[in-house]
Amino acid sequence: METTSRYLDALISELSHLPGIGHKSASRIAFYLLKATDEEVEQFIKAIRDIKTHITSCSRCGGISDAPVCAICEDPAREHSTICVVEQQKDILAIERTGGYRGLYHVLGGVLAPLDGVGPDDLSIEKLKRRCLDEHISEVIIATNPTMEGDATALYLARILKELGVEVMRIAHGLPVGADLDFADSATIVRSIQSRVKI
Amino acid sequence: METTSRYLDALISELSHLPGIGHKSASRIAFYLLKATDEEVEQFIKAIRDIKTHITSCSRCGGISDAPVCAICEDPAREHSTICVVEQQKDILAIERTGGYRGLYHVLGGVLAPLDGVGPDDLSIEKLKRRCLDEHISEVIIATNPTMEGDATALYLARILKELGVEVMRIAHGLPVGADLDFADSATIVRSIQSRVKI
Repeated sequence: METTSRYLDALISELSHLPGIGHKSASRIAFYLLKATDEEVEQFIKAIRDIKTHITSCSRCGGISDAPVCAICEDPAREHSTICVVEQQKDILAIERTGGYRGLYHVLGGVLAPLDGVGPDDLSIEKLKRRCLDEHISEVIIATNPTMEGDATALYLARILKELGVEVMRIAHGLPVGADLDFADSATIVRSIQSRVKI
Repeated sequence: METTSRYLDALISELSHLPGIGHKSASRIAFYLLKATDEEVEQFIKAIRDIKTHITSCSRCGGISDAPVCAICEDPAREHSTICVVEQQKDILAIERTGGYRGLYHVLGGVLAPLDGVGPDDLSIEKLKRRCLDEHISEVIIATNPTMEGDATALYLARILKELGVEVMRIAHGLPVGADLDFADSATIVRSIQSRVKI
């Protein structure tokens, strides 16, 4: 036993599993929760439960949403002729934070990774093709991460989407290769979108 | 709304209140919890609830405990003639992590702070005096933080405990003044205990 309570030890261990939380941060948070009022803790627990019960995926773009169609897809002020393709739902947040993009999104749900057994059918690619046709999309910006798989997926998508008469763009280099879109700063993300190049 | 879900926004806001968690870390953790299985989330919630329902304060030293008397006070292998006085329960963890101290503890519950209305009766001082007599304590090491209030509290305790015939020591300087014991590295804490000076 590390502290004088096995319950505190258990919570510190749980907190250590969270991304970016080391053992010392976990201890501080555990003590913070120990000292918090019951109401504060119940409010925290309710907030965690709520995301599991109320959040769904947007039936159109696949992003997170409280309703069948998300606020971005429903927003008439966005450019509905442009789709930005991202790997994960959280990548939408990374781009939205910059305020530098006004089109729609499409969540692939990953990248092509033959070695891991992830092929085109495991990603939301057929749906993207249907969207390009049904929603009269003129431009698709591929914002997969600048990793080997992300680049390969971008090339694959470019090939099949061009056949549909869609202009396919790739966000510009500028993100460190091998990095994660979610970690990039806003200025880098905006620049990579503005200076996107045709592939 | 910052994300496309007000429930995710709410959780990110809750997480941002935790110590050491900024807005970006909060987003990452929220997405992590969104992707975690229901079982993982329920286990996490149970760990939080458990600390509120099962943890109490040790009736002897005031440290955190699952039982009426904590594991440190109950441990026959510890030196039961020495008490280390700390401000907060979490300070015990900071010292225990070093493995460099084998005596008992006493949690004051704060420091004397006349400007904030905290006097001797608001701290666990009477109980410390009783412990010194009842438990035949020969040495008290005062490990309040090296802040103005922590030093003043140390001097106050030294004065009243010396009257009981107890040797009163202060952990050595070495911690940056104004810092928090909980943030110090283990080597600094061990050294400050080893080179304690009489006051």
